[in-house]
Amino acid sequence: MHHRPSPGYSITIRCEIENRVGMFARIAAAIGKSGGDLGSIDIVRVEKGKIIRDITVNARDEEHERQIVRAVKAIPGLKALRVLDKTFFVHQGGKIEIHNRIPVRNRDDLSKVYTPGVARVCLDIKENREHAWRYTIKGNTILIITDGTAVLGLGDIGPEAAMPVMEGKAMLFKEFGGVDAFPMALGTTDPDAIVSAVEKIAPAFGGINLEDISAPRCFDIESRLRRLLDIPVFHDDQHGTAVIITAALMNVSRLLKKDMKKMRVAVAGAGAAGMATSKMLLSCGIRDITVCDRAGAIYAGRRRNMNPYKKELARLTNPRNIKGSLADAMRGAEIFIGLSGPGAVRAEDVKGMAPVEGRVLFTLANPEPEISPEEALPLARVLATGRSDYPNQINNMLSFPGIFRGLLDARATGVNEQVKFAAAKAIAGIVKDDELHEDYILPSIFDRKVTAAVARAVTEAARQTGLARHFTH
Amino acid sequence: MHHRPSPGYSITIRCEIENRVGMFARIAAAIGKSGGDLGSIDIVRVEKGKIIRDITVNARDEEHERQIVRAVKAIPGLKALRVLDKTFFVHQGGKIEIHNRIPVRNRDDLSKVYTPGVARVCLDIKENREHAWRYTIKGNTILIITDGTAVLGLGDIGPEAAMPVMEGKAMLFKEFGGVDAFPMALGTTDPDAIVSAVEKIAPAFGGINLEDISAPRCFDIESRLRRLLDIPVFHDDQHGTAVIITAALMNVSRLLKKDMKKMRVAVAGAGAAGMATSKMLLSCGIRDITVCDRAGAIYAGRRRNMNPYKKELARLTNPRNIKGSLADAMRGAEIFIGLSGPGAVRAEDVKGMAPVEGRVLFTLANPEPEISPEEALPLARVLATGRSDYPNQINNMLSFPGIFRGLLDARATGVNEQVKFAAAKAIAGIVKDDELHEDYILPSIFDRKVTAAVARAVTEAARQTGLARHFTH
Repeated sequence: MHHRPSPGYSITIRCEIENRVGMFARIAAAIGKSGGDLGSIDIVRVEKGKIIRDITVNARDEEHERQIVRAVKAIPGLKALRVLDKTFFVHQGGKIEIHNRIPVRNRDDLSKVYTPGVARVCLDIKENREHAWRYTIKGNTILIITDGTAVLGLGDIGPEAAMPVMEGKAMLFKEFGGVDAFPMALGTTDPDAIVSAVEKIAPAFGGINLEDISAPRCFDIESRLRRLLDIPVFHDDQHGTAVIITAALMNVSRLLKKDMKKMRVAVAGAGAAGMATSKMLLSCGIRDITVCDRAGAIYAGRRRNMNPYKKELARLTNPRNIKGSLADAMRGAEIFIGLSGPGAVRAEDVKGMAPVEGRVLFTLANPEPEISPEEALPLARVLATGRSDYPNQINNMLSFPGIFRGLLDARATGVNEQVKFAAAKAIAGIVKDDELHEDYILPSIFDRKVTAAVARAVTEAARQTGLARHFTH
Repeated sequence: MHHRPSPGYSITIRCEIENRVGMFARIAAAIGKSGGDLGSIDIVRVEKGKIIRDITVNARDEEHERQIVRAVKAIPGLKALRVLDKTFFVHQGGKIEIHNRIPVRNRDDLSKVYTPGVARVCLDIKENREHAWRYTIKGNTILIITDGTAVLGLGDIGPEAAMPVMEGKAMLFKEFGGVDAFPMALGTTDPDAIVSAVEKIAPAFGGINLEDISAPRCFDIESRLRRLLDIPVFHDDQHGTAVIITAALMNVSRLLKKDMKKMRVAVAGAGAAGMATSKMLLSCGIRDITVCDRAGAIYAGRRRNMNPYKKELARLTNPRNIKGSLADAMRGAEIFIGLSGPGAVRAEDVKGMAPVEGRVLFTLANPEPEISPEEALPLARVLATGRSDYPNQINNMLSFPGIFRGLLDARATGVNEQVKFAAAKAIAGIVKDDELHEDYILPSIFDRKVTAAVARAVTEAARQTGLARHFTH
């Protein structure tokens, strides 16, 4: 692990410190020496001859946290009273809650939001089912569905352990898209059971965001649910990722003044993201894409490690019929898109690509990219990663909040390629011509303009392609 | 319909009124004559020779609303610009939303609530599944599950039309119990499919409140889910109602100084509420209970209109083996509990009960009781209804928020009779000896002391009966 200290590993050590000169310098030195990033130092209270302080330090990881605590504890005249882990602290009690949009303080309120008044609203919806979009949470609420099988690359950790991520995702939907997203981590990994359960719970909601479901199961689950439901079903690991990569590539095309259609692309990874990204790039007109999995380039007729989805990909991609390794697939390519794991790419593989002035690396494995950014930076014209500590962060936070905002605004019956393409174009368009630069191909994930632009584009695309619902008032 | 005007049927008529003397009196007279309850009259704006006002009127029902609008429109010099239905207005956009408990404004926030920090919380829960109670919404969140088959006596209206009630219920859970309750209206009425779907979606939550599922399906669904899940499964229409009726009867016992065990009880209705209430009263030691359905008294050996649940009830109740009508079951009884429908009871049936000074009527059919309150009032010592416009409102708002608050506080693995009994006792105990009166046997549904008292009692009962979860920190 070569990470820098991060607030994701932030601890607060409550210390009882003897009140003598030089103690502060000693603490700062101990933390500095152990590589910790000293944050705030707050006074809790002063006692006779002692001062109680909360010292907050960012660490690189958990082992590093323990190392820092040991270093601080070793300072003579200092007693560590307790260590608070800030990340665990903010998760305490869960991260989201239900909020009543109107108060229920008295009988008048009650008779409107509940009995007897509510009966009329029920009957109105019974008469015209589409009115659910107007008078219930359906119009602004989606479900986040996971089975906990592919959470943050931690693997199959089960529904309970998946919830902190799903709650976090719900927070992002709300904060950036104004979308109410309720997380559901299912107690089953059987695709039939997942499809059946989601089918039953979906009718009251405006959309389904599938999340962290392992490939290739996710493809089957998504396509079956899309057939069964009349609301958008969107597997973010596939399409959210595909959209943001396409947006990045659109801007690379502007920056390098090179037609996307003429790019030669090598993709590492044939999971959810690799599959969906390759297909989206195909639908953008790129012809020379070669996708590799652990067994090397995927080609028509390959026998080893195939599944129906890879077979389909083999038909659609790899026009030069490369049968070798990832290095072979990368040879001469301008664009490398890594959606695999750390260490998948070596410097010499990169050097075999097109000349450096036209060479673009999207090394998106997270938290450790396919090749370390330090090594990759001098080897490419444009480097993008999934990480926030380098330029060009490729993160689907730029896509999913706006996409679902736009789909809900259109009361969409589904989602299609045009919607995804419109979203990618909207994201790319946020970066103006005079801003576009090797280190700035995508807007910041905290740029509030993005969601609004994506939502508008998605609603418009949904309308133009017949996905939008219209009903009389 | 003999209702009084209610804010549940509140309309606001925007009128353009000629600016001359006597107009206001005419409007008030028109509304008064049509039986409407004149609320606020707000000025919107003044134009040349005209004044635009919003006139808010409470009506009895929808037909009455239309009648009032016609009467107002008929006033010379007045033009109705639009009519706004306040009940529909408050439902617009849904009544609940997701709220982030902590902000996500920058990378520091993000790295704690989401990646990379969240991974550690996931792994912690993966190691110790019980930590989900502490670090996810499980500790404070339940699901409200309905299939839309028995909503407010409107029958099988489907999942979308059921949602306004489920959202209203969620509001009450939050407002009165501080419980986050998320509504799920299922797109199936098949008990197997319901049980299977709920089993899959339940693991991430702290409890299941079943709602408005028709009898006898609800009994089977509840008991199967209780066996499958390690969290409380509570069908409010059954047990919430049973608890509050038991509480009311406990206070009737105090008021009349009559041992509950010696009461003779007639119950009208063998649906969810009638079944659960009868069983709970049995477990309180009452022996002489006779339950009637549309076919009359339920007795051992009856053939007509039976099901396994009624057969069980027949074994447990009706010790005098009454085989006649509801009137026969009521003859000589002190307590009548109506959980059926309007018109089920005649004045002469009531007159056949025990002498009036010991006669108690709980006529709980809603919104129209089994016998009109006007007719019933002089015939009984104590009259309780489900309505807010008479004394002694029996409403499970007094029970379910506190029960789930207490179960969540105990991290309960289930729910049992002792918990229900403790809840009933806590509700009854809110009414002090010197407050107890024929017109005050239960606290107000807006009395905030109730939920707190119920929650404490429930947590304690859960602990004493081995339902509470304990785990090391």
